[in-house]
Amino acid sequence: MRSIGFLNTFYKFLNPPFSRVLPIRRMACSRFEYVKSFEQDDSILPNVWIVIRIDGKKFHKFSKTHDFDKPNDENALNVMNAAATAVMQEFRDIVLAYGQSDEYSFVFRKETTAFKRRSAKLLTYVTSLFSSSYVMQWPRWKSGPLAYAPCFDGRVVLYPSDENLRDYLSWRQADVHVNNLYNTAFWKLVLDKGLSNQQAEERLRGTFSADKNELLFQEFGINYNNLPAMYRKGTILLRKRLVDRKGRQAIVPLHEDLISSQFWKHHTEILGKYVPGSYSSPEGLPKLVENQLNEKHSSEQEDEQPQIKADIS
Amino acid sequence: MRSIGFLNTFYKFLNPPFSRVLPIRRMACSRFEYVKSFEQDDSILPNVWIVIRIDGKKFHKFSKTHDFDKPNDENALNVMNAAATAVMQEFRDIVLAYGQSDEYSFVFRKETTAFKRRSAKLLTYVTSLFSSSYVMQWPRWKSGPLAYAPCFDGRVVLYPSDENLRDYLSWRQADVHVNNLYNTAFWKLVLDKGLSNQQAEERLRGTFSADKNELLFQEFGINYNNLPAMYRKGTILLRKRLVDRKGRQAIVPLHEDLISSQFWKHHTEILGKYVPGSYSSPEGLPKLVENQLNEKHSSEQEDEQPQIKADIS
Amino acid sequence: MRSIGFLNTFYKFLNPPFSRVLPIRRMACSRFEYVKSFEQDDSILPNVWIVIRIDGKKFHKFSKTHDFDKPNDENALNVMNAAATAVMQEFRDIVLAYGQSDEYSFVFRKETTAFKRRSAKLLTYVTSLFSSSYVMQWPRWKSGPLAYAPCFDGRVVLYPSDENLRDYLSWRQADVHVNNLYNTAFWKLVLDKGLSNQQAEERLRGTFSADKNELLFQEFGINYNNLPAMYRKGTILLRKRLVDRKGRQAIVPLHEDLISSQFWKHHTEILGKYVPGSYSSPEGLPKLVENQLNEKHSSEQEDEQPQIKADIS
Amino acid sequence: MRSIGFLNTFYKFLNPPFSRVLPIRRMACSRFEYVKSFEQDDSILPNVWIVIRIDGKKFHKFSKTHDFDKPNDENALNVMNAAATAVMQEFRDIVLAYGQSDEYSFVFRKETTAFKRRSAKLLTYVTSLFSSSYVMQWPRWKSGPLAYAPCFDGRVVLYPSDENLRDYLSWRQADVHVNNLYNTAFWKLVLDKGLSNQQAEERLRGTFSADKNELLFQEFGINYNNLPAMYRKGTILLRKRLVDRKGRQAIVPLHEDLISSQFWKHHTEILGKYVPGSYSSPEGLPKLVENQLNEKHSSEQEDEQPQIKADIS
Repeated sequence: MRSIGFLNTFYKFLNPPFSRVLPIRRMACSRFEYVKSFEQDDSILPNVWIVIRIDGKKFHKFSKTHDFDKPNDENALNVMNAAATAVMQEFRDIVLAYGQSDEYSFVFRKETTAFKRRSAKLLTYVTSLFSSSYVMQWPRWKSGPLAYAPCFDGRVVLYPSDENLRDYLSWRQADVHVNNLYNTAFWKLVLDKGLSNQQAEERLRGTFSADKNELLFQEFGINYNNLPAMYRKGTILLRKRLVDRKGRQAIVPLHEDLISSQFWKHHTEILGKYVPGSYSSPEGLPKLVENQLNEKHSSEQEDEQPQIKADIS
Repeated sequence: MRSIGFLNTFYKFLNPPFSRVLPIRRMACSRFEYVKSFEQDDSILPNVWIVIRIDGKKFHKFSKTHDFDKPNDENALNVMNAAATAVMQEFRDIVLAYGQSDEYSFVFRKETTAFKRRSAKLLTYVTSLFSSSYVMQWPRWKSGPLAYAPCFDGRVVLYPSDENLRDYLSWRQADVHVNNLYNTAFWKLVLDKGLSNQQAEERLRGTFSADKNELLFQEFGINYNNLPAMYRKGTILLRKRLVDRKGRQAIVPLHEDLISSQFWKHHTEILGKYVPGSYSSPEGLPKLVENQLNEKHSSEQEDEQPQIKADIS
Repeated sequence: MRSIGFLNTFYKFLNPPFSRVLPIRRMACSRFEYVKSFEQDDSILPNVWIVIRIDGKKFHKFSKTHDFDKPNDENALNVMNAAATAVMQEFRDIVLAYGQSDEYSFVFRKETTAFKRRSAKLLTYVTSLFSSSYVMQWPRWKSGPLAYAPCFDGRVVLYPSDENLRDYLSWRQADVHVNNLYNTAFWKLVLDKGLSNQQAEERLRGTFSADKNELLFQEFGINYNNLPAMYRKGTILLRKRLVDRKGRQAIVPLHEDLISSQFWKHHTEILGKYVPGSYSSPEGLPKLVENQLNEKHSSEQEDEQPQIKADIS
Repeated sequence: MRSIGFLNTFYKFLNPPFSRVLPIRRMACSRFEYVKSFEQDDSILPNVWIVIRIDGKKFHKFSKTHDFDKPNDENALNVMNAAATAVMQEFRDIVLAYGQSDEYSFVFRKETTAFKRRSAKLLTYVTSLFSSSYVMQWPRWKSGPLAYAPCFDGRVVLYPSDENLRDYLSWRQADVHVNNLYNTAFWKLVLDKGLSNQQAEERLRGTFSADKNELLFQEFGINYNNLPAMYRKGTILLRKRLVDRKGRQAIVPLHEDLISSQFWKHHTEILGKYVPGSYSSPEGLPKLVENQLNEKHSSEQEDEQPQIKADIS
């Protein structure tokens, strides 16, 4: 639309520092410029939760090529978590991220005006930074080089009410439960019992959760609930103040049950006024947090993004 | 929308191999699943050109941090070109890509049905793969590590007519001309004449192209038209058959004037029936092409993407 | 989109009675049919309030041509109210309508699935029925024929929270207050004091509400608050059970202050579970309601629209 | 969006006459005004054909209630044509309208900037004026009053190329052919032969066009091609200069075959530069045109709509 072109021009006027950056960019005022008017406005409705979910493209093949552990590869999940942490560090209006398997959801607070709530901007910044960070983080967690560039799709989904948002996150966490229980049983049958993939599938067909729990316990002596919480619950990223580090802020990983209302009562900052809660860890800070603290020292990145500053007090 | 959810379900039915991939994913049929109905359909109008333009976020700072040459850093541009090439290799319905500075435009053919023309899918796949490929390609062209993950925004713009599309590309090429001429003069004044940034800016204020050409020639003995075409024209990527390699297909970089109708007459495959033209290079294949040929040997990536195969005969 | 075309076809399959209606309609399966795929899905996000506001096109001229009383024409407003009542009778998921001057807002309940929440369907049905009903109702309230067909534009606005919806309606009611106070003073000055339009405008320029109240009282002996509530507050239409008519349902006009929370506490059916409240009128039923009761006798219209039946118990 | 609110305000500034209309309207600058920012921009992509199709809601019942002739009611079709003519008179950027049965399609020229190409504005103005005009025109063509207000839905469909537009119109005309041939045979069997509806349906099941043509000829002596063209081809409305009235412009009804390329060669103004062609009628002007000429005398409506003036020379 013409109007948007006009607003962009107007906006740039207000940002003289931006137009003076080097190498100097000038919009060519050519007879071709009318094509700008074909760009369409995509501002998101105010006062709704904005969820951006990214999802690995053909990650079955990717996990095979890179020889991921079955049914869960701890360090491959850590690459995901680290990439998501980079996204949350950059876009401070993301109040929560939730990851499982090859997907990650980012929740922007209802009131965000980051990038004027333009849908494509929010969507692509998140997807792009996640993708490049994934490659950057890879060698920190995995041995061996990447065989090829990973690719993620992204989508924007809007949720009007807090209940809708909670149900969305519960949906994703219920999904990880169902999948992980199945995959755990499946791979035990294949790797430990020597069943073929097809045999394992047949063995599990039509079984309920209770059946699979029982199978794991009876045949493999495994209490499913004792498996690592990250595999069973996925990873929740929240911005917290570190009690042991004088209240310094960081993104911390949690592997809690977010379907229960307990979770929301405890982390009131998500739905309420957005003030980070405090965090302490008896076993010491996770590597994911330590990495942030080390990085932050040398970075001044945050000083440059006033438009997306959340009202964190 | 409920309808889309329904279609997805339906679609998955048709793709049993997909649902059998490992680690096995099952959609949890929980009471939370209604939240899927909040996803909205974003299919793009048929029979229009789909342009996806990505653009570096805060690349002024990025180029400073990584000490790019002024006014153009050949290898930084090569990283962009290599990342764009990776995108074109993956998404075969992209018939042309055009890059300059920290931006790249990808043109999907009008008739594409890739990803059912879903806007967010097309947008994020391109943006994601470009971003991760940028990081992957960096060490092949630049010395020194990346200081932090680069980030790109992306947008979708639709052009109904061939003329609109040509004008769009002309707009971007006119932009590189105006910017590069200015930047070339600016940095000559600063680096060779010792002017401050401000002095250089004042010197150039209000000048026309002819004035800057004259200044370069008179004061620095530079004939602007003899500077590398990549700096003056940007880079056009096309899929071509390599005459010297028995017609093997590759993405080749061109630095031609696409504003003239000559360009479109020569490369008829862009607007006409999409059959790659032939390419030979007197000075030997560019490194960008050589890299592809070496990679292709060991890759079978293309066999797996039937849904986006262009009707290339 | 192809998908939507498919769903339509599918839908029609499920509705054999519809395809058997006479004159019999068959979709021609011609080679042209692909053009259906250009229709785009416009389903509205679930769980948001849907407001449709219609607005008279060039109603200044229209009111002049038809010699409306100044500053308010009671019967012209009644035509609006009667047309809006017809809309509410037809579309039972409208829980409230609010009218003032030449505009009317219709509020669909958050949960409505009428017409699958398709935006254009909801928008055009409301606008169309309002427009045709306006012409139908005209002779019942106004003397003299319509000089030409009236025209209204319509728009869809979405409000995620109850507070947003209340603020929307408050905005429209604050608007009528400001306009009507001004117009009342203006026309008193013109019609009673003989000022020209320009003189009256100058007299009122820069005045506050208190000033205009004072002017009306001092110069014309008018207590603004005693003027008809319909002029000062606009008209709220709600579906109620008529106490004096054995609980029969009807659309009733109210002229209350909806900015106050009192209104919302009293009419709990709007934001709460949608069960019509009861209504009785000491001065007898308004003509608008009487008309409905007389019509209903001979009409069986409602039996035919199961898809938009609200869960009214 | 905030931006749109801003533009509206800006726009009103440019239209002082509009803001001075009486009754004077002032936008209340209340704390509620933020709700305006929830309106979303819906500007249509430039350079595409804009088709608005309206369709009668439950017109089977409507035609029964008003006792329409079977299979075609000439005067009911005339009411449709007259209402569509009123729409074309008001919105001069409509270059063609096509009607059949209870539907009408309006084609806005590709370049139109009427109402800034805002989708809901274009859609609702057309639907509203059609609906109110239908009621206004009813008594001019039909005897007996309207039993209730008719209602139409409307949709916007975009076509990028001339070929797409032609195929759209061909689709609608192929539709009327198939339906009308069927209905003609059906009602002959029912009304003349005394078959029940079900028997007639069975008789025609599985027949092809040739079969039905043959049936009409053999059993009823009817040559289908001699039936009124309006029933077989629908009605095309074009803006033409009347040869017999000194080139005065009017909307004229045609019942030609628009699937053939002949039609488009003859009426070059549709796809080419928009200059009305000339029209003469050996049998005198149709009543639809005569009515316009009589009206125009007393109307100055057109003087007031500069923003939608097509460049008609």
